[in-house]
Amino acid sequence: MNISHIEHIGIAVKSIEEAKKYYEGVLGLKCYATEEVSDQKVKTAFFKVGQTKIELLEATSEDSPVAKFIEKKGEGIHHIAFSTDNSENALLEAEHKGVQLIDKHSRKGAEGLMIGFLHPKSTFGVLTELCSK
Amino acid sequence: MNISHIEHIGIAVKSIEEAKKYYEGVLGLKCYATEEVSDQKVKTAFFKVGQTKIELLEATSEDSPVAKFIEKKGEGIHHIAFSTDNSENALLEAEHKGVQLIDKHSRKGAEGLMIGFLHPKSTFGVLTELCSK
Repeated sequence: MNISHIEHIGIAVKSIEEAKKYYEGVLGLKCYATEEVSDQKVKTAFFKVGQTKIELLEATSEDSPVAKFIEKKGEGIHHIAFSTDNSENALLEAEHKGVQLIDKHSRKGAEGLMIGFLHPKSTFGVLTELCSK
Repeated sequence: MNISHIEHIGIAVKSIEEAKKYYEGVLGLKCYATEEVSDQKVKTAFFKVGQTKIELLEATSEDSPVAKFIEKKGEGIHHIAFSTDNSENALLEAEHKGVQLIDKHSRKGAEGLMIGFLHPKSTFGVLTELCSK
């Protein structure tokens, strides 16, 4: 698998509006975009930090995966996304090597990327996203 | 605060030896260093991914903060570390802006960096490290 960098780190928050005060006011990062990803039932806010983005995730519905995550674990880091040259091939390769997939095939995610998730059971507890342009 | 990039992402694992098989064998990353940080009671293993490092953390003692983290939350992402130009000043600035600190002053961490932690209560659930060379 050809990973070039960490594309983003997803962080589950109750309120993007509140968390933004910390990321902008304390850390000095700048929110450059917000987006709603309706099939994941989340609102997102992006901050660029070098090569990587911080992606804040706020649930838009009680049955959103992000709402369930916060209910179970509290606010905090939700997933890591690695940038690959081809997320579809990367998913296939991971499956071939015995990794349990959440997404059998890549699908469209935020910012127009093709994305797919590996199951944390196979990745030592880290919800892992593989993405490509 | 002047943050240039994400220095590393700390991931708590039960066994570096086991987790390394996934990071090297599936993701294709390369472990370039291991180190024991005795005052934190952890062994660490580093993998470079673009500008950022993955830092696997394994407890060397039952009362290690990493052992307690895994007992409470299971294996998974433990903290994010941001690279700043001066971690001592960054901690002071965060405190001045009302953030609760774990480390009042920066101290020596892995890889010879000066580091200090912000309390997750003040950072929307994300254990946050500020570091500098």
